[in-house]
Amino acid sequence: MNVQVWTNARVATLAADAPQPYGLIEDGALAVEDGRIAWVGARAELPAAFRATAAHDAQGALITPGLIDCHTHLVWGGDRAGEFEARLRGASYEEIARAGGGIVSTVKATREADEATLLAQSRRRLRALLAEGVTTLEIKSGYGLAEAAEAKCLRVARRLGELERVAVRTTFLGAHALPPEFAGRADDYIASVCDMLPRLHAQGLVDAVDAFCETIGFSTAQTRRVFEAARALGLPVKLHAEQLSDSGGAELAASFGALSSDHLEWLSETGARAMAQAGSVAVLLPGAFYFLRDTKVPPIALLREHGVPMAVSTDCNPGTSPCTSLLLMLNMACTLFRLTPEEALAGVTRHAARALGLADRGVLAPGLRADFVLWDVRSPAELAYALGLNPCRATIVQGQAR
Amino acid sequence: MNVQVWTNARVATLAADAPQPYGLIEDGALAVEDGRIAWVGARAELPAAFRATAAHDAQGALITPGLIDCHTHLVWGGDRAGEFEARLRGASYEEIARAGGGIVSTVKATREADEATLLAQSRRRLRALLAEGVTTLEIKSGYGLAEAAEAKCLRVARRLGELERVAVRTTFLGAHALPPEFAGRADDYIASVCDMLPRLHAQGLVDAVDAFCETIGFSTAQTRRVFEAARALGLPVKLHAEQLSDSGGAELAASFGALSSDHLEWLSETGARAMAQAGSVAVLLPGAFYFLRDTKVPPIALLREHGVPMAVSTDCNPGTSPCTSLLLMLNMACTLFRLTPEEALAGVTRHAARALGLADRGVLAPGLRADFVLWDVRSPAELAYALGLNPCRATIVQGQAR
Ligand SMILES: [Zn+2]
Ligand SMILES: [Zn+2]
Repeated sequence: MNVQVWTNARVATLAADAPQPYGLIEDGALAVEDGRIAWVGARAELPAAFRATAAHDAQGALITPGLIDCHTHLVWGGDRAGEFEARLRGASYEEIARAGGGIVSTVKATREADEATLLAQSRRRLRALLAEGVTTLEIKSGYGLAEAAEAKCLRVARRLGELERVAVRTTFLGAHALPPEFAGRADDYIASVCDMLPRLHAQGLVDAVDAFCETIGFSTAQTRRVFEAARALGLPVKLHAEQLSDSGGAELAASFGALSSDHLEWLSETGARAMAQAGSVAVLLPGAFYFLRDTKVPPIALLREHGVPMAVSTDCNPGTSPCTSLLLMLNMACTLFRLTPEEALAGVTRHAARALGLADRGVLAPGLRADFVLWDVRSPAELAYALGLNPCRATIVQGQAR
Repeated sequence: MNVQVWTNARVATLAADAPQPYGLIEDGALAVEDGRIAWVGARAELPAAFRATAAHDAQGALITPGLIDCHTHLVWGGDRAGEFEARLRGASYEEIARAGGGIVSTVKATREADEATLLAQSRRRLRALLAEGVTTLEIKSGYGLAEAAEAKCLRVARRLGELERVAVRTTFLGAHALPPEFAGRADDYIASVCDMLPRLHAQGLVDAVDAFCETIGFSTAQTRRVFEAARALGLPVKLHAEQLSDSGGAELAASFGALSSDHLEWLSETGARAMAQAGSVAVLLPGAFYFLRDTKVPPIALLREHGVPMAVSTDCNPGTSPCTSLLLMLNMACTLFRLTPEEALAGVTRHAARALGLADRGVLAPGLRADFVLWDVRSPAELAYALGLNPCRATIVQGQAR
């Protein structure tokens, strides 16, 4: 048995039923056996079995669960900084679209990029996330929009998880946008998405299935077809829903027992109720809200009232949230959406794990994965308060320093 | 002579009169002699004298001038994360003030902190700035609000510049807020500020003088007294002006030939005209705008129209902008204030240097300080586009890698 003990730490377990905010244990200790948490609690109560082990001195660090980024589009080709600049110089969305910009340009560049190029470009973004204590992240496809290109992106996502010490969950988002070759034939494209899914799944590339349900995306009827294809394979679903309008997507997703519905600026009370009943997580994406200069804040009070768990994520993508800082998202969740720092931190740990259907992480409790972070801060609130300071001192993945 | 040459770079000189945006030279070279730029231009035109030197291969990096953060309150004691959290949990400003929060708590903690503690705490913030290529920054006093404590903070600021390879410009901001012991006696406090200034200056602690001119700060009459004390010593002035209301501060500052007026959300046309005539820089602070959830954007069109140079800075401070990322400020200047990426980058280089009265840096041109940054980006716009990615590969200070 490989046993390790950390002491001289303030431990924020983020356990749901903890008596203290953040599940905070002032003079805490944490024992790990074979990559799993064996014990967590007050140092004074550390069991004799673990006292024999020479402890790591956390030197007063705050220990939290490893951060989980549960909604990213991390793998893409090309670059949209030029488009960002053109818009600020006064170009309209139409002018940019006519010049080949927008998501179409990312699809083109992603299709053209070879796997090594995609990997290198995405790995750099991944490393920025990891530097802030991320130990699990989700990566969606959705810039290939054709079987070979979708498979390529999902393979890159899997490869990233092998190359770096991070757990990667892949999501097939074939129903992200209509590729140019299917213009005017959205139903045909959805048929193609449903057709390719079993083969991608058979290659071990798909952990979950997502769609973009929106007036400018796919209809609820089309989304339903994708979800039925997922259900036939026993794959969990999630949905980009209610970002720009109330399309009833969250309710549809809930009827499929969705892991999460994401964005939700326009979520209705009916939608919130359905999510609560289904146990779907509300994934909040303040980076996209900020970057798009949106003014409609997701209905946080409604989500609280119905007890819908709230996760927070980067939505890392080139068009609407070119963001690789989960700590910045904590601040934006607080500043822009008025989450408390405790809600924001639960949103990148406990609730983010649930949004990925992972019951073995996201809180510090016996039996769970020993993924945790040592932070040079006095209080957990500092993680959400500071802008641009990275107080991550060390990240432990399955009991080993990364 | 110590001669060094960099080639295989895209060089963004940021020179004011350059024909290309950003002063960009596609296949550029840069020669340095004894800490100063000796030559910059197209590699094909590199003078024979510099061809003899074995060149550093920049491997396609983008080279820009070192970044300049021209408005910070970097040195403070204590911590305001708890106040941030209390407000998000629903406490009113009044409740926080009654509980000893707000700037008063920072003044108390700063007065109580010894110099080593202040230094360690501030150094950590400084290092976050330096990691993103900052080579010059301004640090204001203003949390001591009494002679000994103001001197202590200014000494810490100077010491930071000695410990790290960064140029520090100190600003005396005694007229930042009314300390509790002067409650109801603002004019008496201003007299005390004017009285201590010559002694602080005699100790070599003051490069410039600033004040907070606002309905909740000091009046224009009080600001004038501080500026007259500065003028008597030959010290340049600058002003926190028009953040919450149009007080006419920018106009007053211009009449003293101020280096800059800062914030400026409520700047009038009269104020902009006066700034243009005086050559004052408009220092934009989007971090404070964001953190305070302000809705009144500074009049960018007016500043452009009158040719007022715009700088961009972190305003790093515990109450309204706990920000240590100048790259994040580039993004916020673009996203929130609609600056172009080129304006934003000039705002942390050429115009920031001017806001500090430093004619020897901020652009890459012969004779100027060889302070520059190598970035792993293809286009300068990427620096403003990305959120949370730090592409700084190397920072060169006076010709030497930091
Ligand atoms: Zn998304
Ligand atoms: Zn300030």
